[in-house]
Amino acid sequence: MTDAKRPRLRAVPFTAVEFTDSFWQPRQHAVRQRTVPILFGRCEDVGMVESLAVDTPPPPLRIPIGPWGGTQQMFWDSDLGKWIEAASYTLAVRRDAALEARIDDLASRFAAAQRSDGYLNTYFIRRAPEKRWTNLRDWHELYCAGHLIEGAVAYFAATGKRTLLDAMIRYVDHIAATFGTGTGQKRGYCGHEEIELALVKLYRATGERKYLDLARYFVDERGSQPHYFDLEARRRGDDPASYTFRTYEYSQSHKLVRDQDKVVGHAVRAMYLYSAMADLAAEDDDAKLKHACQLLWADLVGKRLYLTGGLGPSEANEGFTADYDLPNESAYAETCAAVGFVFWAHRMLHIECDGRYADMMERALYNGAASGLSLTGDRFFYDNPLASKGDHHRWEWHDCPCCPPNIARLIASLGGYVCSAGENEAAIHLYASSKMRLSLGGGDVVIHQETNYPWDGVIAIRIDPASPQQFALKLRIPGWCRSWRVTINGAAPAQAQAVERGYLRIDRLWQKGDSVRLELDMPAERIYAHPAVTEDSGRVALMRGPIVYCLEGADHRIPLHRILLPRAAPLSARFEAGLLGGVATVAGEGLAMDPSDWGGALYRPVEPNLVPCPIVAVPYCTWDNRAPGAMAVWLREA
Amino acid sequence: MTDAKRPRLRAVPFTAVEFTDSFWQPRQHAVRQRTVPILFGRCEDVGMVESLAVDTPPPPLRIPIGPWGGTQQMFWDSDLGKWIEAASYTLAVRRDAALEARIDDLASRFAAAQRSDGYLNTYFIRRAPEKRWTNLRDWHELYCAGHLIEGAVAYFAATGKRTLLDAMIRYVDHIAATFGTGTGQKRGYCGHEEIELALVKLYRATGERKYLDLARYFVDERGSQPHYFDLEARRRGDDPASYTFRTYEYSQSHKLVRDQDKVVGHAVRAMYLYSAMADLAAEDDDAKLKHACQLLWADLVGKRLYLTGGLGPSEANEGFTADYDLPNESAYAETCAAVGFVFWAHRMLHIECDGRYADMMERALYNGAASGLSLTGDRFFYDNPLASKGDHHRWEWHDCPCCPPNIARLIASLGGYVCSAGENEAAIHLYASSKMRLSLGGGDVVIHQETNYPWDGVIAIRIDPASPQQFALKLRIPGWCRSWRVTINGAAPAQAQAVERGYLRIDRLWQKGDSVRLELDMPAERIYAHPAVTEDSGRVALMRGPIVYCLEGADHRIPLHRILLPRAAPLSARFEAGLLGGVATVAGEGLAMDPSDWGGALYRPVEPNLVPCPIVAVPYCTWDNRAPGAMAVWLREA
Repeated sequence: MTDAKRPRLRAVPFTAVEFTDSFWQPRQHAVRQRTVPILFGRCEDVGMVESLAVDTPPPPLRIPIGPWGGTQQMFWDSDLGKWIEAASYTLAVRRDAALEARIDDLASRFAAAQRSDGYLNTYFIRRAPEKRWTNLRDWHELYCAGHLIEGAVAYFAATGKRTLLDAMIRYVDHIAATFGTGTGQKRGYCGHEEIELALVKLYRATGERKYLDLARYFVDERGSQPHYFDLEARRRGDDPASYTFRTYEYSQSHKLVRDQDKVVGHAVRAMYLYSAMADLAAEDDDAKLKHACQLLWADLVGKRLYLTGGLGPSEANEGFTADYDLPNESAYAETCAAVGFVFWAHRMLHIECDGRYADMMERALYNGAASGLSLTGDRFFYDNPLASKGDHHRWEWHDCPCCPPNIARLIASLGGYVCSAGENEAAIHLYASSKMRLSLGGGDVVIHQETNYPWDGVIAIRIDPASPQQFALKLRIPGWCRSWRVTINGAAPAQAQAVERGYLRIDRLWQKGDSVRLELDMPAERIYAHPAVTEDSGRVALMRGPIVYCLEGADHRIPLHRILLPRAAPLSARFEAGLLGGVATVAGEGLAMDPSDWGGALYRPVEPNLVPCPIVAVPYCTWDNRAPGAMAVWLREA
Repeated sequence: MTDAKRPRLRAVPFTAVEFTDSFWQPRQHAVRQRTVPILFGRCEDVGMVESLAVDTPPPPLRIPIGPWGGTQQMFWDSDLGKWIEAASYTLAVRRDAALEARIDDLASRFAAAQRSDGYLNTYFIRRAPEKRWTNLRDWHELYCAGHLIEGAVAYFAATGKRTLLDAMIRYVDHIAATFGTGTGQKRGYCGHEEIELALVKLYRATGERKYLDLARYFVDERGSQPHYFDLEARRRGDDPASYTFRTYEYSQSHKLVRDQDKVVGHAVRAMYLYSAMADLAAEDDDAKLKHACQLLWADLVGKRLYLTGGLGPSEANEGFTADYDLPNESAYAETCAAVGFVFWAHRMLHIECDGRYADMMERALYNGAASGLSLTGDRFFYDNPLASKGDHHRWEWHDCPCCPPNIARLIASLGGYVCSAGENEAAIHLYASSKMRLSLGGGDVVIHQETNYPWDGVIAIRIDPASPQQFALKLRIPGWCRSWRVTINGAAPAQAQAVERGYLRIDRLWQKGDSVRLELDMPAERIYAHPAVTEDSGRVALMRGPIVYCLEGADHRIPLHRILLPRAAPLSARFEAGLLGGVATVAGEGLAMDPSDWGGALYRPVEPNLVPCPIVAVPYCTWDNRAPGAMAVWLREA
């Protein structure tokens, strides 16, 4: 039976995995202890909670509220939904009465705000009830619904409490009645994708296929002609041609999604759409949708992705521009986009278990997504450039606070990304010290990982089935890894183990206490960008395992832009327990351009002298956790 | 007698020099035949001429006029003034009745528009008479006056016609009565410098010292406290703190000009101010002002100047940013700023005849200024980047059409920049085939240059005094030149000739037919930028003599950003008579990054392969005169 024919794998519940490692466990701790309570405080500060009182007159829109100085935003429901989701993931691991009381209060407020027909967008109910569903292109109503659905599903899963879930089910029923191809229905869909993947979650939580059908409607209707956004603009009396973003590529609605093969427009929207497409492709075994996902994946990964797994270079559209246009200092690379890319990659793994997807999922996780949250859990990056002159720093709050709860919900539920399992098969995608409880072939199995990954490539795995059990353990051999060894119970396997699509497959009768030791060689390596990436021409980046490195001003007395890395300089890695929560650094003998013999000259016919300059690189995701300063991922090569 | 003690030199009248070369003569021809008539047509098209009918109701400001689609601008008087100036320089060389009829008509219109008290700004007379002199910071009234003065002086010099000159004298008398330190006078000055240097010209044309005094008042008052722009803003009921540009550095009025030592703010304003400062320093022998000029010069040339002589990297303030901030692709480097830099450098030469100033004057002339005008004389650059992906092209017209008449007036009067002369001394700053008539030591002298400069470094000079004449001929040894030879009447000079501050001084009794042959070695050279210039790190530029080179897409099949120039690759120069009006190109064996073995990869641990790639560089100033495409001055060095 070839891999392609085997039954698909499904993600394990995130609650099945308990991290005991030094990378994710402290981050999960920070999310629980700091991020979640802090974000709720900020949501309160800016007036989000008060804004749910839809039957009281709203404050004027122009007057900033609270210590952070913003005004009410149309997408606040989504921020609360995402916060509820992140908080619920922490509750699923450990209940917390005070936190639940807050969410119960929010759930009651949402339920109280809901209109009798099921409509539930607090902004429009309070401020502009007559404008309901009149501008799907710009006004985020279905997007907000999507995040509230995700929050409701997560809270129900964690606590069994149904207030918000029931409200959202009523809302979804209203949405399903409003939108569709039936007579009298609006053939609309949201300018900002999100509800599609949320509806898949609602389907999975309830088993109700109508939610999957609604998701499929939204995905399939997208980009059809005559274009809904044109029609509704004319109904508002607006000229569709005066659209701010000019092209419907902005919302990936420029053509039918099954015909799309270029990643375009707003990056977060794109990732949420592609995630839903992958979900539907898997649920429906939809070959055409799968093919579109594969083409889009190849386009992103081959032409439009930062080394960090960040994406969407441009601030103007918060999204994509042209092939190979990957500027470093001005990179937008929104945290939400990297998080969304992890969502998509994870879903691709459940269409086909191919290490290419896990490689990129891991890349984005450890780099362009993790960078969005400070080690303390209370500072955030919205945009994640790959170079900075020293003027880019984490913030405490943002007028568009989408990223903090996004990275928080990802980290809080990260256990779900470690492994996918089928009837008689478990594929480990991510390595980290952890304890995982699975059900395989009808029996319980506990799988322990012991490793210093990502700082070291040795992974000791112990398999403890409740009783001896035949199943295949698939261990990912990362794409970055060029040599590795495996032993089973201390001995080389009797026969060479095949690597299928990036996974080493070990199918055997597992006994309690069986062990597998995987040694992934993890040298520090130089990485180069395709010649078409103008900004990286003549430059080199450092990676070790899945970790992208950067230089920070904090570690160098010489301005970073004067530092070069010689082609042949040896690189050495060292674990530094006291640095940045414990990281491996990469050191080497660099060179620095010396300005001392330039006198007053700005130009001269003699090259700058080079002087030795030791360099120390730190993981990109940990930058700006110390003294503010410059940062560079791509170094000039000498 | 040391050079410093000798009487200062003065510029020769531009009419004394007739170019017979292949660089400037065709450009002067294009300005006369194409630029001047075309610009008049465009000024008419947009309504500039009609706008002088101040006693008829103006058209609504919001409705674009004519084929170019702009609306009336506050600074249109200045554009007409600059056009009159450029046209007058062509008339000084060859009268043209039709052209004069146009200028006479404009002069009559301006004279008719003038108010009885002498005020003459057609925008405010027609549209907002009550706002006269209420916003010197932003509204360009004195700036417009300055350009009309320059135009009037030039037209009077060319034709002897006084209508416009007399009107401007009346206006200046009104201005002198309005502004100053006397009781009841406004202690104001213009936000956009220009009138200061124009008043020096008016002084020189009329001999009336009061115009010099007014210029000195404007220069000295600038930046004094309490700040005039604050005071007038409050008088208008505006909050000075809400100033768009935030800092008065924008108009170089943040401190007294004598205390300034950093080039800041709007680049054209800065150049016009520094030009006036240099004029006044020379006229008044003002050591403090001269010192300020020298400090500002060192700051610009040492930290803030593009290799091309362009300046002002930022579009946001059309001006300066931080030391060594010299981005290439986004370089603003307005043509007007390079032209203004030539004005300033020329004036510095008349404070002290030092080759440093002539070097930069020549640099800007042949590169960042000349680039502003197409070879055909009918297409223009406003901004002059040092790199382009292929989306930056010359335009036919611009809403702010300041640059075309600015480069036109410079080229039309370029003869004045070739040589400066004193009682018994003539300093040749620029080499070009030409015939020059001077009066030295009371006698007439004709000096012929025969050369292919700037394409070749051999300059044959013939000196024809009307009768034998003792005087010093100073020949500039350019700063770019590292080896040279001179012969006098075919023989090496009897004694080694001293080079004083960049000039070889030959003091002798000159006979008719005497000849000097100067051979300046002019190899193609690699030029490097100071290590602090981030954007040029790892890059090399090509120069040959005064010419900065660039690669253009038109000459290369491989995208320019993939091309590298090896450190050791020989460079060869070749004159190509049929190319771009006849230029020397610089060729070498480059390398190109090869994308063919990358498959679908965007990143990989192996450096890009390099394949041979012949390169041909053309003079920067001639770029975008062929098929539109990419351009690069700074090349990656391999």
